[in-house]
Amino acid sequence: MPLSSKFNGLELPASADFHVHLRDGAMMKAVVPTIRSGGCNTVYVMPNLIPPLTSASDALAYKARLREQDPSINYLMTLYLHESISPAVVKGARAQGIVGIKSYPAGVTTNSSSGVLSYEPFYPVFTAMEQCGMVLNLHGECPSGKDITILNAESNFLPTLKSLHARFPKLKIVLEHCTTKDAIEAVRECGPNVVGTITAHHLYLIVDDWADNPFSYCKPVAKNPSDREALVKAALDGTGKFFLGSDSAPHDLSAKKGGTGKVAAGVFTQPYVTQLVLGAFEEAIKREVITEADVTKEILEGFLGGYGRKFYGITDSSNEKIVLRKGVEVVQELFEGDRVQVIPFRKGQSTWSIEWK
Amino acid sequence: MPLSSKFNGLELPASADFHVHLRDGAMMKAVVPTIRSGGCNTVYVMPNLIPPLTSASDALAYKARLREQDPSINYLMTLYLHESISPAVVKGARAQGIVGIKSYPAGVTTNSSSGVLSYEPFYPVFTAMEQCGMVLNLHGECPSGKDITILNAESNFLPTLKSLHARFPKLKIVLEHCTTKDAIEAVRECGPNVVGTITAHHLYLIVDDWADNPFSYCKPVAKNPSDREALVKAALDGTGKFFLGSDSAPHDLSAKKGGTGKVAAGVFTQPYVTQLVLGAFEEAIKREVITEADVTKEILEGFLGGYGRKFYGITDSSNEKIVLRKGVEVVQELFEGDRVQVIPFRKGQSTWSIEWK
Repeated sequence: MPLSSKFNGLELPASADFHVHLRDGAMMKAVVPTIRSGGCNTVYVMPNLIPPLTSASDALAYKARLREQDPSINYLMTLYLHESISPAVVKGARAQGIVGIKSYPAGVTTNSSSGVLSYEPFYPVFTAMEQCGMVLNLHGECPSGKDITILNAESNFLPTLKSLHARFPKLKIVLEHCTTKDAIEAVRECGPNVVGTITAHHLYLIVDDWADNPFSYCKPVAKNPSDREALVKAALDGTGKFFLGSDSAPHDLSAKKGGTGKVAAGVFTQPYVTQLVLGAFEEAIKREVITEADVTKEILEGFLGGYGRKFYGITDSSNEKIVLRKGVEVVQELFEGDRVQVIPFRKGQSTWSIEWK
Repeated sequence: MPLSSKFNGLELPASADFHVHLRDGAMMKAVVPTIRSGGCNTVYVMPNLIPPLTSASDALAYKARLREQDPSINYLMTLYLHESISPAVVKGARAQGIVGIKSYPAGVTTNSSSGVLSYEPFYPVFTAMEQCGMVLNLHGECPSGKDITILNAESNFLPTLKSLHARFPKLKIVLEHCTTKDAIEAVRECGPNVVGTITAHHLYLIVDDWADNPFSYCKPVAKNPSDREALVKAALDGTGKFFLGSDSAPHDLSAKKGGTGKVAAGVFTQPYVTQLVLGAFEEAIKREVITEADVTKEILEGFLGGYGRKFYGITDSSNEKIVLRKGVEVVQELFEGDRVQVIPFRKGQSTWSIEWK
């Protein structure tokens, strides 16, 4: 049965998106209202503001600003791994409700210039995180260099993932935004404390799609068809090891046009994130990568939030539900705020709808 | 000795650029004057206008329009391989001075929608070309499909090159704008009737460079560092099998901004093409891919025109000379015409200069 019949009217728990960029200021005001449009009531908020969030107090002040925009969302906060973070900072942050710490290798993506050059100095921090149950979120790319390009940066990072896991087997680690078959396999080879997030857009894209389209260009970049199909299959494998983290990354239109010669990396999926996942599975069925039978209600519920909530140990006390509708909606052309304009992924294309129950 | 000392003041024959896009109308008027700025007096003109040039009369009418802009340039004309081209058309075109025929696989680049789906129907055309000494110029990429992406499109085309060469060993074939180590090796493995052109920009670029920079995005896309280094070494191998074809491809700024979601493929190098080649070798020396000693006057003269003229059987009766200068020039920010604006490759960066003697 086509998904449009099978899931039209399906009721699911509100989605949880375990990797979002909500920015600050005018962009935050434009973006936060789109969280619920995308079917989510829980978001795991990235700390790469300018300057990055390296203390619990900064993260909590940011959380307060987010709550001013929409207090109905459960914002899960992270810190930015940085030399100022000590084991004492970790434990203090944990006590104040900070959930994890995100590591960016220096220079690989938007606002990562304060990132990590080597993991070894952070071993005491990882020990403290392991002890107090904080999650380590890894941007899994090596910085480009002699033989490292944006195409093999993730595959070259995987030995680091495995060695961190071997050294800290009780540390919960998320390999964020997996884009390659290699990454999927590496996460599978690790123990249950290592999981991977998958974005909505990487379920759609290959390299050809972003090469000439700034609104599909993100880091890590989408790779080959075989990589995309590995992601689709991982999203549906039902093991709980892979779940949604959209990496929705809004940039003002001016930063996407490449007028200065540089296009900002990031795809904006927040307003349709649940809907896009449904559409991606439909496209994969058309490509004959999966069949309708592979997309069950249980797996959908898991990928869209259940698996992630379980890994992070979060319960959704709101018990909010969304209803999926296969209707006639099309993706809005533009989202606007106060002097900010953001073009969403797949603008103008047809999409599933969601209703809040 | 650094190239800046070794070649400052060096006198060379005017360069020949064996792959240029000069467009038509206002863009042509903006671009043709830049041919001499780039040190060239001979250009091999691509036929992918809209509609494409599929007859000698159209190509000669275009040549007349080009000569109106600058009669001092030797414009070598090609036709666009198309079902309307018969053996009789080939022979008639040759008699009228048309030099070659360019084949575009359907859909791979700018204005290639009328391109070739299969080579077999053109075997009689290739036989006629072989007989009358016309050159076949191949855009060597397979159209993207199931497992073909813009990254492996060229490598996947190479068996086609080899089988065409095996079937038509006397047909002169140019594999245009080689971008991979694989392509260089394939050209080397073929007999002397198969050569390859190399652009100036592919001597500089890898995938990371164009991913976020529309002004470095072209088809075929720049690949890995190892590919770039293979191109640099091929350009300097002194065999005569590889020579300059810049594929300079101007697009109006509006088509590069991706405002509609699509960025036009093409890098504009025409005004500095000789200068850029010098700079590329300097950068390769810095990367320790080659040494100063690898860049000799003889090889430079060959790559910049001598090898190509020899392959095409062209003599430069003008005997014009250029002089290289390592000065303080920077690449202009913008080239403008009547309602057209083109941003050149490496705008604002320092460059060699040339003077006409």
